[in-house]
Amino acid sequence: MKVTVSRRAHFNAAHRLFVKDWSDKKNMEVFGICSNSNYHGHNYELIVDIRGDVDPITGMVIDLKELKDIIKIEIEDILDHKNLNLDVDYFKKVVPTAENICIFIWNILRLKIDSKNDLEVTLYETTRNFVKYSGK
Amino acid sequence: MKVTVSRRAHFNAAHRLFVKDWSDKKNMEVFGICSNSNYHGHNYELIVDIRGDVDPITGMVIDLKELKDIIKIEIEDILDHKNLNLDVDYFKKVVPTAENICIFIWNILRLKIDSKNDLEVTLYETTRNFVKYSGK
Amino acid sequence: MKVTVSRRAHFNAAHRLFVKDWSDKKNMEVFGICSNSNYHGHNYELIVDIRGDVDPITGMVIDLKELKDIIKIEIEDILDHKNLNLDVDYFKKVVPTAENICIFIWNILRLKIDSKNDLEVTLYETTRNFVKYSGK
Amino acid sequence: MKVTVSRRAHFNAAHRLFVKDWSDKKNMEVFGICSNSNYHGHNYELIVDIRGDVDPITGMVIDLKELKDIIKIEIEDILDHKNLNLDVDYFKKVVPTAENICIFIWNILRLKIDSKNDLEVTLYETTRNFVKYSGK
Amino acid sequence: MKVTVSRRAHFNAAHRLFVKDWSDKKNMEVFGICSNSNYHGHNYELIVDIRGDVDPITGMVIDLKELKDIIKIEIEDILDHKNLNLDVDYFKKVVPTAENICIFIWNILRLKIDSKNDLEVTLYETTRNFVKYSGK
Amino acid sequence: MKVTVSRRAHFNAAHRLFVKDWSDKKNMEVFGICSNSNYHGHNYELIVDIRGDVDPITGMVIDLKELKDIIKIEIEDILDHKNLNLDVDYFKKVVPTAENICIFIWNILRLKIDSKNDLEVTLYETTRNFVKYSGK
Repeated sequence: MKVTVSRRAHFNAAHRLFVKDWSDKKNMEVFGICSNSNYHGHNYELIVDIRGDVDPITGMVIDLKELKDIIKIEIEDILDHKNLNLDVDYFKKVVPTAENICIFIWNILRLKIDSKNDLEVTLYETTRNFVKYSGK
Repeated sequence: MKVTVSRRAHFNAAHRLFVKDWSDKKNMEVFGICSNSNYHGHNYELIVDIRGDVDPITGMVIDLKELKDIIKIEIEDILDHKNLNLDVDYFKKVVPTAENICIFIWNILRLKIDSKNDLEVTLYETTRNFVKYSGK
Repeated sequence: MKVTVSRRAHFNAAHRLFVKDWSDKKNMEVFGICSNSNYHGHNYELIVDIRGDVDPITGMVIDLKELKDIIKIEIEDILDHKNLNLDVDYFKKVVPTAENICIFIWNILRLKIDSKNDLEVTLYETTRNFVKYSGK
Repeated sequence: MKVTVSRRAHFNAAHRLFVKDWSDKKNMEVFGICSNSNYHGHNYELIVDIRGDVDPITGMVIDLKELKDIIKIEIEDILDHKNLNLDVDYFKKVVPTAENICIFIWNILRLKIDSKNDLEVTLYETTRNFVKYSGK
Repeated sequence: MKVTVSRRAHFNAAHRLFVKDWSDKKNMEVFGICSNSNYHGHNYELIVDIRGDVDPITGMVIDLKELKDIIKIEIEDILDHKNLNLDVDYFKKVVPTAENICIFIWNILRLKIDSKNDLEVTLYETTRNFVKYSGK
Repeated sequence: MKVTVSRRAHFNAAHRLFVKDWSDKKNMEVFGICSNSNYHGHNYELIVDIRGDVDPITGMVIDLKELKDIIKIEIEDILDHKNLNLDVDYFKKVVPTAENICIFIWNILRLKIDSKNDLEVTLYETTRNFVKYSGK
């Protein structure tokens, strides 16, 4: 009897999409205006899903206050009001597409969430573009 | 060729989280302000997913008017404008966390929805906290 | 050259609508299920509008972090996860309709917001029912 | 390591639900006001999910501009500002329920999306009624 | 001490924009795809604002259940699941633009809402296009 | 008989808040993390309100396609996927707070919208923070 518990969070960040080994022309061809060398930015919306057994006494899969704090410390404090390309080491070698940011967040949270629970992360870059990753 | 049909509904209810066998102090430690003895409340948003075959003539998995009526009679009439702890027998022994309310709703609907169709229930306690249950 | 700056906040509370001098029957006639003696509840969404001059150096009407803190201390800490009828003195004599809660919030904030700025408060009881008050 | 990439789109269309072989009376019994002979309409919201491997260089499952263009040409240009019953050949023989429109869209997109990627289509007829199809 | 009370409602309708005295070519030039002779449709979202004094005993400007019923009987029953051009006499002579539908709704409600209260109607044709009218 | 017509648009941009004549320390004191020297970013949502007379023949205050194009050319092409501080001359001398961006947009649109119509611009920096300007 497993229930999925979800928590929504958000962070505002600047980024640009470009591959260092490519010419400016090729970057512009592949990434378009997302490759603007002065960066642009987004209000990222994040949904973290934890799937596990409901504790028969507390009626909870995970304490949502605890989950809120984990997301605050591990994700928001690292990404909020940051330039992903310049301020986050991981994205010095990896293009900060929504896909890669989502995998980055999942990898961090996976270490903090009890391994007996499943984890899925959804990341909205805009209301029209979003991605989902569950480690599989 | 299965399609999932979803219907959104809502109800407004008061509740508090607490375990009867625990001291007030322990309840406050575990549930925080959600344990306020005078109750607080939420606008619960409910999504009911039915997955099944599409009828080749009507083009429907289930008549949405029928599903709307089932949700109205079986769920809204029981939970809307109620105090979950005081007005709903089930929650006299079970803590009305989002997880347990979701399971409660699923168990009721499972009896009313044709067993050849899959059923999943999503319950939003707030726009930031929500849970999902499919009976597995 | 005046700009209106708005900040959205929220609180979850229980309440019931009833007039003490009236019979249960009359309360039920006027307020319907909102009069349930065991209370029900809502996720209230609050929008606070401040209208004033833009500071020519900072480009701000009011520091939004400051406004966020005022709303947190003066409103959320008083109303969030509370029973409005039982936990808030003001509503022991006044029916906690959306209209009256909105006026209550406006009166508190008016004392904390620079009097040279206009103030308007919008309160959503649900996504379908909401009220607005500007002290006029 | 698969990521799901989603793109939201929309189109506004008129339709009515009715089975040609049935009497008006039976159509009204089954489909109610949705069977109004003069049509009614909706703002359909569409979400297209593509699940696949992330390209190790670009960090993308699929170029979202490309996906946006596919949806524009293959779906929006066919369905937007149209009468589904009269302007779309497919719905001359098939009732344009949300279920059938969703399958129609999935079948078109399946031919345009790389077959190594999974495809799921969600279609909102209103914010309260929506359907999902993944070809299984 | 006036408060504005708002109620949200919705209806789904088909329409087309065209002026009878104009050629098809001119209609297409002015109204574009909105002029499609087979109609298209929308999920219209309606917000009705009533501004007036708060009753000192009930704490209400207007009973929201009463307002809900007025909107249901006077507006939804006339416009929901209808073809505005064919099913509503008023729009046989008047183009059913969002502007004109909004004025039509305001004129009906003005007769039903106590004249001591102000009335404003907002009509969303889509989430991106909407209009507002207050009789001035 | 005036109607307000509104159009929603959006753009994604990077920015930082800082006053050139101030020390880094003072900028951090006043603007907090919004002053991060590497920039952060937002999905800005923009609502443009035009208030004017309804044309008695077309039933329109302004052609929404025309308004959409004005917003596209005059605002989105200038601000979307840009760094406001580096890519937009105006913000080399003016702090790009929501207030100042809103005034900037209003000033541009005022020149393009018929002067017989009123103009108001609302700018959402996030769903929680937004500003409004009407030139008064």
